[in-house]
Amino acid sequence: MRNILVIGAGKSSSSLITYLLNKSVSENLHIIVADVSLEQAKNKIQQHKNGTAITLDILNDIERRKAIKNASIVISMLPAHLHINIAKDCVEYGKSMVTASYVSKEMQALDTDVKAKGLIFLNEIGLDPGVDHMSAMQIIDSISEKGGKMLLFESFCGGLVAPESDDNLWNYKFTWNPRNVVLAGQGGASKFIQEGKYKYIPYHKLFRRTEILTIDGFGKFEAYANRDSLKYRSAYGLDNILTLYRGTIRRVGFSKAWNIFVQLGMTDDSYTIEDSETMSYRDFTNSFLAYNPYDSIELKLRHYLKIDQDDIIWEKLLELNIFDSTKKVGLKNATPAQILEKILKDSWTLKENDKDMIVMQHLFGYELNGKKQQIESSMVCIGDNQTYTAMAKTVGLPVGIAALKILNQQIKATGVIIPVKKSIYEPILKELEENGIIFKHKNVPYLGYNPESIIG
Amino acid sequence: MRNILVIGAGKSSSSLITYLLNKSVSENLHIIVADVSLEQAKNKIQQHKNGTAITLDILNDIERRKAIKNASIVISMLPAHLHINIAKDCVEYGKSMVTASYVSKEMQALDTDVKAKGLIFLNEIGLDPGVDHMSAMQIIDSISEKGGKMLLFESFCGGLVAPESDDNLWNYKFTWNPRNVVLAGQGGASKFIQEGKYKYIPYHKLFRRTEILTIDGFGKFEAYANRDSLKYRSAYGLDNILTLYRGTIRRVGFSKAWNIFVQLGMTDDSYTIEDSETMSYRDFTNSFLAYNPYDSIELKLRHYLKIDQDDIIWEKLLELNIFDSTKKVGLKNATPAQILEKILKDSWTLKENDKDMIVMQHLFGYELNGKKQQIESSMVCIGDNQTYTAMAKTVGLPVGIAALKILNQQIKATGVIIPVKKSIYEPILKELEENGIIFKHKNVPYLGYNPESIIG
Repeated sequence: MRNILVIGAGKSSSSLITYLLNKSVSENLHIIVADVSLEQAKNKIQQHKNGTAITLDILNDIERRKAIKNASIVISMLPAHLHINIAKDCVEYGKSMVTASYVSKEMQALDTDVKAKGLIFLNEIGLDPGVDHMSAMQIIDSISEKGGKMLLFESFCGGLVAPESDDNLWNYKFTWNPRNVVLAGQGGASKFIQEGKYKYIPYHKLFRRTEILTIDGFGKFEAYANRDSLKYRSAYGLDNILTLYRGTIRRVGFSKAWNIFVQLGMTDDSYTIEDSETMSYRDFTNSFLAYNPYDSIELKLRHYLKIDQDDIIWEKLLELNIFDSTKKVGLKNATPAQILEKILKDSWTLKENDKDMIVMQHLFGYELNGKKQQIESSMVCIGDNQTYTAMAKTVGLPVGIAALKILNQQIKATGVIIPVKKSIYEPILKELEENGIIFKHKNVPYLGYNPESIIG
Repeated sequence: MRNILVIGAGKSSSSLITYLLNKSVSENLHIIVADVSLEQAKNKIQQHKNGTAITLDILNDIERRKAIKNASIVISMLPAHLHINIAKDCVEYGKSMVTASYVSKEMQALDTDVKAKGLIFLNEIGLDPGVDHMSAMQIIDSISEKGGKMLLFESFCGGLVAPESDDNLWNYKFTWNPRNVVLAGQGGASKFIQEGKYKYIPYHKLFRRTEILTIDGFGKFEAYANRDSLKYRSAYGLDNILTLYRGTIRRVGFSKAWNIFVQLGMTDDSYTIEDSETMSYRDFTNSFLAYNPYDSIELKLRHYLKIDQDDIIWEKLLELNIFDSTKKVGLKNATPAQILEKILKDSWTLKENDKDMIVMQHLFGYELNGKKQQIESSMVCIGDNQTYTAMAKTVGLPVGIAALKILNQQIKATGVIIPVKKSIYEPILKELEENGIIFKHKNVPYLGYNPESIIG
């Protein structure tokens, strides 16, 4: 019996744990699910004979080390900042480790020790980062193998509500951490490169500089630029690429309306609003508008942000009740972002039968035998229900598949790594396909940004 | 002979040192000017018999302590973060101290020790903070003495170019630290209170929410809100005031044009631009605009920020050469803000015979005997030349006057204080008047923000 320790039994662990339990008989596995809440851990195991739920306070060194010592491999599904103690224990006890999180500096610093012990610490093996790395590198590698030269890489990903559950004007509901949605794009200008020219978008313009994309069978979407599109330029071997852009997907029209909150200052998380607890949604809105006793808050806002009488943005704002004087914020010393999150949760929380949807699209522009060509690669995943959400599947399945393949030595590598090498992504992508996470590729005319090489 | 030690012989010390030297014979003073540059210190003394220039490296404990030990009183004109070691030495050697800077936490923490030794550490006794505190408190105190109740206090201050030297479309030149002008308003939302309602303006809207003011004989100005208008609410005894607003003065039209830089992202100081050294001003501008090989940078900018064909803003931008492809940035790893500062310095540096101007205006709304009234109090100071600038006079004279009055025990107090008490501001304001820094008061109809008490 091989023990797989899964630390963290939150929403994103459902598909992962079910995948491992389903494999447990044929693969001779025992799945230990550890969480600070025993109930939550038990809930994920559903009394499967090869599963055990345990309580684990991650800050309790004795408990944590005991659990890790008994494991054959460790998966951490905790928030990224909680991985490091687990990682150090894994080094000490000689266990490989898998996470869906970005590689932190502290994690990277363990690389030499991890290599010395012949272990794999595979990170960024969720959806984004994770599936994006693997699906992109598969095409990029195949283009270079043919002797092609990469000219353009654009990559988009978003967590949305599934079409069948899409019943509000924003075409959006929270399918992941709402706080991250409210704060998205903050913390500095977004940076990318187009036709060899570096471009920078400040936060307050980010949601007015979207790009449009189409996914066959699902219609049009829009994407706003991620903070740092150049982050994986070297890791992907694209140091000389002319265009490199990564973006977050929303339904068309979302960003233009979201921009209203940005312009008002409602997404700011850096200070607290006076008397936030007792204020109404209407008071909150008014606190960002000039004082004027003669005009309505509605007209002040329309005038300030130049919203025409017949602009659908207005209906979107009304739908969220931001002018409601009866709804109270009810949060003490809250930041604007916290209050906005509360207001949005009223309207954007998934209903019991709602399903979510993950959308990912890559564009690869390249030159081969003197001809410019483009490949479009898209993946859509729709959740089964509120447990096996598209998010839980696309984050958890690659983690589970990777952990099992490491355990079975089908994936061999050492050190603190991310899944950009063929020997890693190929077997995982294959099994993801068998589990319904499928990319559709098609050749399209090369569009690029400067087809006729005009200077701009 | 009493020794006054002035640490820091920069631009803002000229009027201060000249004032003290002029008083030195009648008052039996010896003025020691200490600076890291002996030449600069000597330059300020102009071979006056009662002046001595010394070299002082403020981080050299032995040098610094020796100088402070020999002084009767210490004035620090260094940047605020350099005061603390001087302050600690002053406590140790029992010397009072004067600065024009905001009271830092470290400075405030010395209060008990300063009081125990019977010393005065008088801070915020420059222009803003300084003259603003004193001139405001004089009226506020006189209103309360009559039994009036304060309803509104608005205070505006700005450093501008004098009308006779005002020869560009922006009606602005740098008269103080250019970097602070470029970064003005950043670091969080601006906060104030109008008719009892808290209002918040995010940075990217700050320059579109200006207020207009008029100063007799000088025409109209505009002001954008300071970061925290409520900072002195308690210190001024205005805890229950309905309207409290502080702003920075510019000539009308400046802010609307400045907003173009804010919107583009050119004032951002949080990241560096790739290849900044070799890029042209035109490249810099283009880095904030979408890629498009078919359109000119000019049209892309006009369209992005909706600048009409006949908008004077366009001429203002042209005047600064931001579309010039021959001018090079020439700064390595520079932030957008650093590059913008460089571009602006080309156009906004004072010429040899240019004069600067300080403008300050307070509005005091109050109720007395059931009647609402308003006082408008304004001060304009024009520089003599590039040495005795309006800035040097309005910052340095109150510092010098205060230091001498402390030395002469005409100002008595203990602890770490700011000049909001009558016993301090009254004698200083009187002598400022004798030196040409004069506030003109007039009664105006109460305007307030809600004259008819309509809810808004």
